[in-house]
Amino acid sequence: MANTTQVTLGLIQTTCSPEKQSNLESAEKQIREAASQGAQIICLQELFLTRYFCQREDAENFALAETIPGPATDKLCALAKELETVIVAPLFEKRTQGIYHNSAIVIDSDGTVAGRYRKMHIPDDPGFHEKFYFTPGDQGFVSFQTRYARVGVLICWDQWFPEAARLTALSGAQILVYPTAIGIRPEDREESVKQAAAWKTIQKSHAIANGVFVASANRVGREDDIEFWGQSFVCDPFGELLAEAGDGGEEILIAQCDLDLIESTRQNWPFLRDRRVDAYKDIGKLYLDPDAS
Amino acid sequence: MANTTQVTLGLIQTTCSPEKQSNLESAEKQIREAASQGAQIICLQELFLTRYFCQREDAENFALAETIPGPATDKLCALAKELETVIVAPLFEKRTQGIYHNSAIVIDSDGTVAGRYRKMHIPDDPGFHEKFYFTPGDQGFVSFQTRYARVGVLICWDQWFPEAARLTALSGAQILVYPTAIGIRPEDREESVKQAAAWKTIQKSHAIANGVFVASANRVGREDDIEFWGQSFVCDPFGELLAEAGDGGEEILIAQCDLDLIESTRQNWPFLRDRRVDAYKDIGKLYLDPDAS
Repeated sequence: MANTTQVTLGLIQTTCSPEKQSNLESAEKQIREAASQGAQIICLQELFLTRYFCQREDAENFALAETIPGPATDKLCALAKELETVIVAPLFEKRTQGIYHNSAIVIDSDGTVAGRYRKMHIPDDPGFHEKFYFTPGDQGFVSFQTRYARVGVLICWDQWFPEAARLTALSGAQILVYPTAIGIRPEDREESVKQAAAWKTIQKSHAIANGVFVASANRVGREDDIEFWGQSFVCDPFGELLAEAGDGGEEILIAQCDLDLIESTRQNWPFLRDRRVDAYKDIGKLYLDPDAS
Repeated sequence: MANTTQVTLGLIQTTCSPEKQSNLESAEKQIREAASQGAQIICLQELFLTRYFCQREDAENFALAETIPGPATDKLCALAKELETVIVAPLFEKRTQGIYHNSAIVIDSDGTVAGRYRKMHIPDDPGFHEKFYFTPGDQGFVSFQTRYARVGVLICWDQWFPEAARLTALSGAQILVYPTAIGIRPEDREESVKQAAAWKTIQKSHAIANGVFVASANRVGREDDIEFWGQSFVCDPFGELLAEAGDGGEEILIAQCDLDLIESTRQNWPFLRDRRVDAYKDIGKLYLDPDAS
């Protein structure tokens, strides 16, 4: 399908309640609002159906997972078709007994599923016990052609890995979307300024290195011990901010992207021309052990 | 050799004259000044011996190249030994008839050459005709143990490639140094703000992604059609600026680095733990051709 040049993104930055049904209804309402503001590609935050349950390891939380397709994605597919919008829907996926993923689907504007991504890099830190819940994705880094643009999805912790952004961009993505749930304990609020700065820097750098748009939709609000810091943003292919949300509450962030900027940026900063693909083999190693004998 | 925990870096941000001998003498003076301010690892800017001759393609400029070892490096080795400093010396290297590199050597504090890097990513843009002069390096991404730290060297255009930073960090580098010659035509000064911002963002992101210190030493001043923008800087392993030079003139930038920060940053932000080395193979491809049949 031919791309239009101008695409309007809508990022949903929101709080979550303990009830899935209520979060789904809230997401529907916010998607309708974003669409009414002109958004053509709408991105929900990571695990949008639930609170961030990974603060604790508790096997009862596996009951929060859904199959894909399932009730939530069916509902969103119908909504995408009705509104003629693309929807990026990240949720806790039950693949089979005992295999669960932190996933996202891209729903095209005709209500069909354009593709699915399963989070590849899984964190495990105090308050973020994701390795307990999520099997790391086994389908690699991907992007999907939609009516409005080719969209690559990466999820939260993936944002710290330049390899993930690079491979998704090389697969043809014009926009990298990062549904996210990042925050900090309220007593560390001073540290949070430094962390949020690094979080923006590294995501902007993916835009710059690859000549793509980057959009990051983060959760907001306090849940148990973590205050999610919002600050969802969209930047252009040279890392300049197009739109940025605050850290204080729910927002629908709208940003217009001129996809022609990808071509002109890459012509003037031809990094993709000069990659030394003959010399990157060791990227496939964990460490090169300079001190080993 | 055991590392000390505290290391003081000195970056030389300077103008260049048309005379190699005068630039060498000036570098010696600036190195002495940096050492007197406590610098233990001193980094000169890209092609420090010459003006940025790549603004034009002219075969006569090949006469500016030197062998390594050669007169300039001999002089700097003696100076490193005298001052007990590490010196990173980037210069136009003649390897043999018809093979020239944009290289840098790392001289240890005993005056021996710890290692050599030959620029891997070669730009070619209006005003930066490097592909005419420099054969791309064939020795990959490397770092070298010195008395004060393990130092990785990358040169200018390399700074836009996350793969280069990653591989150099995986080789054990604690500090990535980027000798640089970047600037803009004076009539594009407005654009220069945007470009310098992207230039800092991507280099900070290498610090963040890899948990290493990053130091970038840039040229300054007007040469023919280009105004080099200075703004040399040092940032810590989470991308926070430790020191930054202005864009207006010569400076010796001193920054103290606590190498223990590498360990603590990597413990708290364990990106190196979670790399998906099983899934990065396609980094070795130029593009993945989503539209190919």
